Amino acid sequence: MTRFKLLIEYDGTGFVGWQRQKNGRSIQETIEDAIGKFCGEKVLAQGAGRTDAGVHAYGQVAHVDIKRRFKAETVRNAINAHLRSFPISVLSVEKTTDQFHARFSAKERVYIYRIINRSAPLAVDKNRAWKITTPLDAMAMHDSAQILIGKHDFTSFRAKQCQASSPVKTLSTLQVNKTEEKIEILVRAPSFLHHQVRNIVGTLKLVGEGKWTVNDFAAVLKACDRNAAGPTAPPEGLFLKNVSYPKSTF
Amino acid sequence: MTRFKLLIEYDGTGFVGWQRQKNGRSIQETIEDAIGKFCGEKVLAQGAGRTDAGVHAYGQVAHVDIKRRFKAETVRNAINAHLRSFPISVLSVEKTTDQFHARFSAKERVYIYRIINRSAPLAVDKNRAWKITTPLDAMAMHDSAQILIGKHDFTSFRAKQCQASSPVKTLSTLQVNKTEEKIEILVRAPSFLHHQVRNIVGTLKLVGEGKWTVNDFAAVLKACDRNAAGPTAPPEGLFLKNVSYPKSTF
Repeated sequence: MTRFKLLIEYDGTGFVGWQRQKNGRSIQETIEDAIGKFCGEKVLAQGAGRTDAGVHAYGQVAHVDIKRRFKAETVRNAINAHLRSFPISVLSVEKTTDQFHARFSAKERVYIYRIINRSAPLAVDKNRAWKITTPLDAMAMHDSAQILIGKHDFTSFRAKQCQASSPVKTLSTLQVNKTEEKIEILVRAPSFLHHQVRNIVGTLKLVGEGKWTVNDFAAVLKACDRNAAGPTAPPEGLFLKNVSYPKSTF
Repeated sequence: MTRFKLLIEYDGTGFVGWQRQKNGRSIQETIEDAIGKFCGEKVLAQGAGRTDAGVHAYGQVAHVDIKRRFKAETVRNAINAHLRSFPISVLSVEKTTDQFHARFSAKERVYIYRIINRSAPLAVDKNRAWKITTPLDAMAMHDSAQILIGKHDFTSFRAKQCQASSPVKTLSTLQVNKTEEKIEILVRAPSFLHHQVRNIVGTLKLVGEGKWTVNDFAAVLKACDRNAAGPTAPPEGLFLKNVSYPKSTF
C-alpha cells in the first residue's frame, strides 16, 4: 500500500462541496470515483479542509492509500484522464508515508476571498467572486481586520453547526487589497472554524460600506456571539489557496 | 432617436461569437433580444470588433439606436435584467451622438491572450486560458514579439477568410509577461486583421518552446505567407480588453 499526497484545483460551482453528501455530487466522491476507475480500488480521499458547496480551490490537498503499485505521475495522469468532464484537476501527486495525514498534519491553510465592487452583474467572473454594489472602503476593512490577528475566541464568526471542540483560533494574516474594482482578502491560519472566513468577510463588508466603525468591529469579536457579527458571505468568492505541512511529515 | 454607447463584458464560452450567425447563439443577438424585450424595438447592436466563438471580452463596445426616450442608466439596468441567465453584463451605458460609430470611430483596440503553462488540465480557468504543457521561455517570446511592433504587412498572420482591404496594420504594443505559470500577452493596435492576435500567439508559442528562433520569427513576418506562420491559437485564451475612441466622437 502506498499513500499519495494529491494537490487539487477545482471550480466548486455546482458541487455540494468537498465532502461526500447524499444530496449531490461532491469533489471528494468525484475524485474517489476517478481513482476507482483507473485502479479498480475503492479509496477514501481524505481532504485537508471541507470546502462548502460553491467554494473553489487552487490548492486543496488530499491523501489516498492505493494497494497496487503505481508511479506518482501515473496516478496523476490517470486521475485527470477520468476527471476530463469535471472542472477538477490534480496538479501534482507525490508518494508520502503513513505519517502524513492531509487534515491532521497540516500546519497552515491560506484562503483568498474575492469581491468585485461594482453595480453591473458579473460575467467573466460569474460564480467566482462576490459582487457588491455599494462602494467599499478597503482601507477601513483592512484596518478593522487587523483586530482579528492573533489568538482569539472566534465564537462571533463561527457557524452554529461548527463541530470544532474550541472556538479559539489563531489568525496570522488578514489582508484586504483593492485594485480598481477587485478586492482580494487573504487569510492565513493554522486552522479555521466552520464558515469562519465567510463570516469575517460578511462582517468586514459592513465596515467597508461605512455602516460599522472599527470600534463596532472590535465589539463583535468581544461579544463572542454569532448574532453580533454580520451575515455569512456567499461561497462563490472563496478559494482555498494552499495548505502547508511541516517537512517531517513527508 | 437616441444613440447609446454600451460597454460590455462577456464570457464567450458556448456562443458563436459576437456576430449574429445562423448556427447558434451570438452575443450580439442576445443583447439585441434583451433590448427588444424591455423597449419593444428591434435594434441593431453594432460592435467595435467581431470576437470569434469562444473569445471573451472585458470591454467590448457597441452602439444601438433607440426611438423611445430613456435615461442611460435605465437602459443599462433593463438590459442586464433581461441578460440574467447569460454570462453577459452591460457595464455602462452612455448617450452619444450620430457621429459615434462603435466600429468606425474606434482608434485603438487592446486584447489580452492568457496562457497557463503547466501539464495539469485547467479547472478554475477552464475555457478562459490556453493550457500549454511544454515549458515556455516568455522572455524569448517577448523579444521575438518586438519584431512585429510598427507598420507591417501582416499577411503571414492573417486568416485566409479575412475581408480587410489591406494586410497592412500597425501594432503599438505586444508584451509577453510571465508570473509563475501564467503568461499574459498584451496587444494594442488601432485595428486588427481576422485571427491576427491568435495567429501571432500560435507562432510565438513555437518560439517559447524553443522550436523557432527570433530569426525564424522575423522570417515569418517577411514571408507574407500564412503558411509560414504557426497555427491559430485557440479562442478561449483571448479577451477583448478595451476599445478607445477620440473624444470628438462623443
